Amino acid sequence: MLTVEANERLTRVGPGTPCGELMRRYWIPVAPFAQLLENPVRKVRVLGEDLVLYKDRRGGLGLIGDRCLHRLVDMQFGIPDECGLRCPYHGWLYDAEGVCIDRPMESTRDGFKAKLKAYPVQELGGLIFAYLGPLPAPVLPRWDLFVWPNAVRQIAINIIDCNWLQCQENTGDPTHSVWAHGHLFKYVLEREGNLAKRAASLDHTLHTRTKWGDGIKELFAKSTQFGFEKGISYAKELGAEVDHVRRHSTVIFPFYTQTGKTGSPRSELQIRVPMDDTHTYHICYQVYAAPHGVDAPHQDGVPWYEPPMFDDDGRPILDYVLAQDALVWVAQGAITDRSKELLGRTDLPIVLLRRQLDQQIARVEAGQDPMNVFRKDPGPMLHGSGIVPDGWTSPDWAKRQLFFSQGYRKMYHKGFASDDADRYGPALELVKELHRRIEEAELAMRGDTRPATVAPGAVVDV
Amino acid sequence: MLTVEANERLTRVGPGTPCGELMRRYWIPVAPFAQLLENPVRKVRVLGEDLVLYKDRRGGLGLIGDRCLHRLVDMQFGIPDECGLRCPYHGWLYDAEGVCIDRPMESTRDGFKAKLKAYPVQELGGLIFAYLGPLPAPVLPRWDLFVWPNAVRQIAINIIDCNWLQCQENTGDPTHSVWAHGHLFKYVLEREGNLAKRAASLDHTLHTRTKWGDGIKELFAKSTQFGFEKGISYAKELGAEVDHVRRHSTVIFPFYTQTGKTGSPRSELQIRVPMDDTHTYHICYQVYAAPHGVDAPHQDGVPWYEPPMFDDDGRPILDYVLAQDALVWVAQGAITDRSKELLGRTDLPIVLLRRQLDQQIARVEAGQDPMNVFRKDPGPMLHGSGIVPDGWTSPDWAKRQLFFSQGYRKMYHKGFASDDADRYGPALELVKELHRRIEEAELAMRGDTRPATVAPGAVVDV
Amino acid sequence: MLTVEANERLTRVGPGTPCGELMRRYWIPVAPFAQLLENPVRKVRVLGEDLVLYKDRRGGLGLIGDRCLHRLVDMQFGIPDECGLRCPYHGWLYDAEGVCIDRPMESTRDGFKAKLKAYPVQELGGLIFAYLGPLPAPVLPRWDLFVWPNAVRQIAINIIDCNWLQCQENTGDPTHSVWAHGHLFKYVLEREGNLAKRAASLDHTLHTRTKWGDGIKELFAKSTQFGFEKGISYAKELGAEVDHVRRHSTVIFPFYTQTGKTGSPRSELQIRVPMDDTHTYHICYQVYAAPHGVDAPHQDGVPWYEPPMFDDDGRPILDYVLAQDALVWVAQGAITDRSKELLGRTDLPIVLLRRQLDQQIARVEAGQDPMNVFRKDPGPMLHGSGIVPDGWTSPDWAKRQLFFSQGYRKMYHKGFASDDADRYGPALELVKELHRRIEEAELAMRGDTRPATVAPGAVVDV
Repeated sequence: MLTVEANERLTRVGPGTPCGELMRRYWIPVAPFAQLLENPVRKVRVLGEDLVLYKDRRGGLGLIGDRCLHRLVDMQFGIPDECGLRCPYHGWLYDAEGVCIDRPMESTRDGFKAKLKAYPVQELGGLIFAYLGPLPAPVLPRWDLFVWPNAVRQIAINIIDCNWLQCQENTGDPTHSVWAHGHLFKYVLEREGNLAKRAASLDHTLHTRTKWGDGIKELFAKSTQFGFEKGISYAKELGAEVDHVRRHSTVIFPFYTQTGKTGSPRSELQIRVPMDDTHTYHICYQVYAAPHGVDAPHQDGVPWYEPPMFDDDGRPILDYVLAQDALVWVAQGAITDRSKELLGRTDLPIVLLRRQLDQQIARVEAGQDPMNVFRKDPGPMLHGSGIVPDGWTSPDWAKRQLFFSQGYRKMYHKGFASDDADRYGPALELVKELHRRIEEAELAMRGDTRPATVAPGAVVDV
Repeated sequence: MLTVEANERLTRVGPGTPCGELMRRYWIPVAPFAQLLENPVRKVRVLGEDLVLYKDRRGGLGLIGDRCLHRLVDMQFGIPDECGLRCPYHGWLYDAEGVCIDRPMESTRDGFKAKLKAYPVQELGGLIFAYLGPLPAPVLPRWDLFVWPNAVRQIAINIIDCNWLQCQENTGDPTHSVWAHGHLFKYVLEREGNLAKRAASLDHTLHTRTKWGDGIKELFAKSTQFGFEKGISYAKELGAEVDHVRRHSTVIFPFYTQTGKTGSPRSELQIRVPMDDTHTYHICYQVYAAPHGVDAPHQDGVPWYEPPMFDDDGRPILDYVLAQDALVWVAQGAITDRSKELLGRTDLPIVLLRRQLDQQIARVEAGQDPMNVFRKDPGPMLHGSGIVPDGWTSPDWAKRQLFFSQGYRKMYHKGFASDDADRYGPALELVKELHRRIEEAELAMRGDTRPATVAPGAVVDV
Repeated sequence: MLTVEANERLTRVGPGTPCGELMRRYWIPVAPFAQLLENPVRKVRVLGEDLVLYKDRRGGLGLIGDRCLHRLVDMQFGIPDECGLRCPYHGWLYDAEGVCIDRPMESTRDGFKAKLKAYPVQELGGLIFAYLGPLPAPVLPRWDLFVWPNAVRQIAINIIDCNWLQCQENTGDPTHSVWAHGHLFKYVLEREGNLAKRAASLDHTLHTRTKWGDGIKELFAKSTQFGFEKGISYAKELGAEVDHVRRHSTVIFPFYTQTGKTGSPRSELQIRVPMDDTHTYHICYQVYAAPHGVDAPHQDGVPWYEPPMFDDDGRPILDYVLAQDALVWVAQGAITDRSKELLGRTDLPIVLLRRQLDQQIARVEAGQDPMNVFRKDPGPMLHGSGIVPDGWTSPDWAKRQLFFSQGYRKMYHKGFASDDADRYGPALELVKELHRRIEEAELAMRGDTRPATVAPGAVVDV
């Protein structure tokens, strides 16, 4: 539970708000690059600001204010020029700094100093990132999933009709999987009459997730170098199969969460970009990597897609994981009133996630850089977990991965692809081909080894 | 004409408003039971409150506040359990009293006392009724149409975009039929080019209704045991065919009106449930009864439907009676400004209907029960008109009903089914079969009798 | 740039506003007559007032307040009677003066004096004009395009979601054609892959318009008898082909602009009727006249159409001239904030257009009639340009029109019909037939003359 004031502090993102100022210290993804190949000019709304993103005829990118200085025409209808974007009404031309560098039919430029606001942008891993804060801009960090080699990628985009923090809190909530992706999933398939078809196998994730509710000893959470680590410890005496610990997805401050290990056949960054106080630009950055000795199929650029959230009759589609998350986020209201909530022990990580957010806001208020703002280049590849991921890069990955035999790759063959947004993705066929190649290589290497079960005292990443 | 204040008093229905408090003394229909067979959880808006109605796996019904206590998730997306409804996010379970009886993954229930608001519900005649007022709840009255035996039923549901009182005043308005269901109907069919096809016969209701405007001597209205009686007296010297009286539909306080006699082959309760100040949940509860000696076709449960009000181009559909009423209700505005109206003699019953409503509000304000609040069981079947309907239960119903030979049942065979919402109903084929059986029995009983005309001095129910 | 107050003064049109009072001195077109043949009753919103326009069964027109006096029913659902319009609820009948001349079923009319507001209307050239101002109404001027003989006509109607002045300023803006109808048009066709197909010829208007941006010496503008004249003078030394002047479309105060010469094979009045502060009822009144000695195809009445502005996916259609204009109008915002604009030399005519508007508002404030309010009949045909158009009425029009050989008529044969709203018009086939007849006559008259080019020092109307 927060006070009304604290709730405002953590959720509002407009210019001058505490959280808005924090967010303005980061490079923020605003669009897949592939969208600019379809239409080189598009409206962007981020942190409560209306902007126009464009790619000019030389390939230069710009992100500028959305109203021409002349007669205030919306520049989303602008015409890309060799270098900059022109207003469609009288051709005034703006460069990437927002400077009006040409006013056709006007006499001279002498003394014309007005400019549009403009923000730096750059491309990384098929996403365009913008920086809306005070200059100089920090270095854009190359989180490993954006640059990991030998992989297939695709980008799922959704606009979620609620405040960003509801999405991000989901990440600090290890137990929601039991219900939102377990029991709810089962109920949805039951009502559709698809439970037997989709989840007959007892190792389907909906069944395993349901079991994660049994034998919980306690929740844990702590800050890490780049974000936040949390999970659940289980006790056999409380009903778990063995005493063990499950680590939940890796949180990278301020709005990322990573599921799946870097380098594995499926991993994903979920990015919760605040469009404004009540809308979130949600990105699933999906990476399907090939292990040592296997070649990922070739891909020209990173395609994007929008997983549908509603069917033709306007009813929510709920039989895949992202949609289940989106449902509960939006179902909390446009900005959920945290002064009315009633938290329990399972919300401990959420409490700490909010505290971390509050602390980083305070750093900005104190004139300091918050975490993950890099003034020097932190290197060619940053691991959000703080650990070099070597599981799948090892030459004998197949033997080392036995432990994960219930993970995505196995489940993929049992239909997991149809259990998340991936099923709508344009790269799905390439991903299937990748998995075929991995299986082939695995069979060649493995011999007669068999899948392991969870050992007492183990620490499992989920 | 009312003052602005009086208009507020009679129309607003939120908690704490005069009319809202009156309404909270009644059992209020909130959904057809059949809808819960399609989806056991649904959002309900009634008297300005957002609630969630559910049927759990044991068949128990509940109507509870719409926000989970934990993190405020909208419970309309909840999962029915054996006994109660679970939040889809973390599985908190609420029973029909709103008590949170399980918080999975939390340690214990010790000291957890918070509960959602919850209201009693019960099913009657295929409708679910809720009681939102102070406890103890009164007895749910069994108005005869809900329990009449040997009948086919169906329920038409529409959300009408205006205040409930505009719908209910229509009931206190015997003369609107002349225009809204007479001249307007004719004009609509003319414009469609369907007048000859649909209403060639001079005994089509649109023609008879048009004639009801001729020879009006005066309007009358008075309170009855359960509601309100009103109608028109006609004088031959003013242009009527004979001196006679026509009684208009039976009003049952606070929001029912009955057309057609109980026990007849077609009768209907129209129920105008205030959803909030500017929306009405409108129910046509349609009953098609078999007379003595005839068996109504069997029906499994009471089906529901939504009569369409607009065509695919968004234009109002106006060639059936309910749609004509709905048009004029909404066309008065969201809450019509009664301080600007100009009433005439034909509005006398409306004035008295408002007065009755005001008086019953005053009773509640004085701490008394208003009319039709039953603290003791009023018996297995209540007749809203106050009169036992015996016309069609008599063994020689066919002879007694000659008088009604121009009524609905005859007109039904001439296409009246296509003149009202019935034409869209899922039970239409059963109703046609019922009418076929009635006709067969009637022919066997009647011999050579012929239809009567209206006798001078007669009192006719319409 | 205007102050915020000046912007309000020129844009707001409700009752009692400065510009609204000015507008109330004019006959204002509110609907094509042809729409009343489809449905004789329709809602009209003009100058912020909601009204109902009807044609009764005797053909009489009326424009009255939209709420029945009795119970405030929206009269757009009314029933036309022999003489007047009846409310659909209880049949109250209103004549064209708004007087309630019949209250069926009420006793008498004695003492019933209430009336609806009502405005005079009349038909001219297939349009219905209304006068909302103080009586007596002035004479409805017969601008030549409304009454020109021997012509085909059609009326394009659009509701534009912005203030009327943005549309009208477009008319005082000779340079926008270079971009909005030149470069933007080209870019749109390029993106569609239709540039080669649609505009391969270098004399396609998009190419000629693009060139009009070269060699501009200065803009000019001045008031005329009926409105406003403006254009561009070009200098060879600045890059134009020759020194010359191009006069832009003829402005007729307060909200008309004429493109194409009266009597020519294509001319058009664009009429920007203020519906309210943020919506414009936009009319393209299109006239295709036959020259001397040619018969225009026969037409029964003037048909109307609505050129589509969006495709089935909701994306703007931009490959025709009217849609390009509409895009930039709306893209300036609902009411553009002129206190933030940055005008240049090319905006000189706009500045004068605003000044003229302001001056005419001041005349009304001073109790005087503004321009184009006629208290005496100004004659059977008024030429908005102030000049009798004789180009095409001359017996040797073909030789005289050589100069215009790059104009619309020629371009029409090269596909210009598909470059503007005309392509959607119901009279398109008649227009094509007219052009075929003109070409036939021209070929017979011309002999071996060849098209001229622009002569140095020429004044060209565009």
